[in-house]
Amino acid sequence: MRVSVAPCAGFCFGVKRALKIAFDAAHKHVRNAPIFTLGPIIHNPQVVAKLEQEGLRVVDDLGDLTGGTMIVRSHGLPRKVLEDARRRGIDLVDATCPFVKEAQERAEQLADEGYAVVIVGEEDHPEVLSIAGGLSFPATVIAGPEELDGLPKETKVGVVCQTTQPLGHLTAVVGRLLERSKEIKVFNTICRATFERQVNALGLARRVDVMLVVGGKNSANTRRLWKLCREAGCDAYHIETAEELKPEWFEGKEEVGITGGASTPQWIVDDVVSAVEGIQAPGDTGEESRP
Amino acid sequence: MRVSVAPCAGFCFGVKRALKIAFDAAHKHVRNAPIFTLGPIIHNPQVVAKLEQEGLRVVDDLGDLTGGTMIVRSHGLPRKVLEDARRRGIDLVDATCPFVKEAQERAEQLADEGYAVVIVGEEDHPEVLSIAGGLSFPATVIAGPEELDGLPKETKVGVVCQTTQPLGHLTAVVGRLLERSKEIKVFNTICRATFERQVNALGLARRVDVMLVVGGKNSANTRRLWKLCREAGCDAYHIETAEELKPEWFEGKEEVGITGGASTPQWIVDDVVSAVEGIQAPGDTGEESRP
Repeated sequence: MRVSVAPCAGFCFGVKRALKIAFDAAHKHVRNAPIFTLGPIIHNPQVVAKLEQEGLRVVDDLGDLTGGTMIVRSHGLPRKVLEDARRRGIDLVDATCPFVKEAQERAEQLADEGYAVVIVGEEDHPEVLSIAGGLSFPATVIAGPEELDGLPKETKVGVVCQTTQPLGHLTAVVGRLLERSKEIKVFNTICRATFERQVNALGLARRVDVMLVVGGKNSANTRRLWKLCREAGCDAYHIETAEELKPEWFEGKEEVGITGGASTPQWIVDDVVSAVEGIQAPGDTGEESRP
Repeated sequence: MRVSVAPCAGFCFGVKRALKIAFDAAHKHVRNAPIFTLGPIIHNPQVVAKLEQEGLRVVDDLGDLTGGTMIVRSHGLPRKVLEDARRRGIDLVDATCPFVKEAQERAEQLADEGYAVVIVGEEDHPEVLSIAGGLSFPATVIAGPEELDGLPKETKVGVVCQTTQPLGHLTAVVGRLLERSKEIKVFNTICRATFERQVNALGLARRVDVMLVVGGKNSANTRRLWKLCREAGCDAYHIETAEELKPEWFEGKEEVGITGGASTPQWIVDDVVSAVEGIQAPGDTGEESRP
């Protein structure tokens, strides 16, 4: 059974940067004051567990917290949450992905220029909440063009996109907007690395017999990769760690493709590769191995 | 044989307006000074012939013309042509379609705002020449997304569209631009009436057995209607007048659809309807007639 790993599986620039900031802050931090993130810093439970060992807690809301240090997660936080934290005397360390930051700033620019802002993405995703949360007027968040039906038509529409969305979503929404609006200004805020990761995963999925997509079950960009591979007609499994592998997935398969989300550490991808190489699938002669 | 006429066959707002301006100017004009258009005022030879009877000549270039009156055709004229005419002491009467005017102004606005301007349309069409001709930097004119391949990528792209293009062309180009550029500002300058005419023609073509598309052979919007009907899988014929009808087109057909371009006068459409109703197609029992 041959194993092919996508060239861009694993941490993206923004995740690497956020983790460096978080580990540095945790190391430097005075241990008796709280240091925390509001929601996980990235969507990978294994990495978050490692950070917790370093003293970085994850809280779900600010509750009655005052003081201490908050690392702003890679997905960013809505402006009013940041203001609330400042009012509570909490020090902020910003680990927002610079590409998410750009999406936030572009959305603000569009609102300032008088455009009705549309964000293409998942309504409840923390990144989208952080983009929408910076605007003085409510933005419209839509996942696909069909969600525009029934919404009021605006003459001037400004569009940004969740950084990890597939380009096809943005294109489809803009196409439908062109039927409804006279003027459309679009910032393609999709992260280039995400786009390339998706293109690579899709290319691999079309070639191999089974695809493993490694990453947090709570990671939207990992789930998206898995969905794209399935849509390409490939047997695809979304796993967090090598423990979840099942030998029957590989029965009669000749080539396995492996990719990982932007928040998946290399050591977890490597673990999965080793585990797959060690699997003797039922009916596998074991004659072929990784090239 | 049933005959169905599309509800919006015939003159559009801009053509009606241009012809009113032209006929009024011709009537008021002092007969011994030249009055002319540079290129036909609209793309319909029969209407242009009627205007010539009123003294309105069509010239192909300004040559050594000085003085007189020039009616600016419905498609508009490039700025430097207008400046040349003014220098020659020619009076200008502007019959540019207001929607074309808007496309010209939007393209200028985009150029002023620092966007690389893309015009979606036919490179040699007078309207496109008039839009491109108002800009200080050369615009890129493209008919479809494939024409972008090989062109240099721009970070900021501004898009306008020839007013009579199908929306699908604009959408396809914007979709491809989103793969290449960070910021795209689009003015959907497609004329609403043209869009509705195309939707109606397409609906009719899908229902009837044969479509007649009536209008100037030099009329891009009429040719476009004909092409859309053919692409819908319908037998479709582009004719200028009833004289071109051939009985064999209607052999074994039960329903005929008729539409006309934006520059096709009602009397020519009516002539075609009467002629079709009078045709005894080979094998037609003549039992059915127009509802």
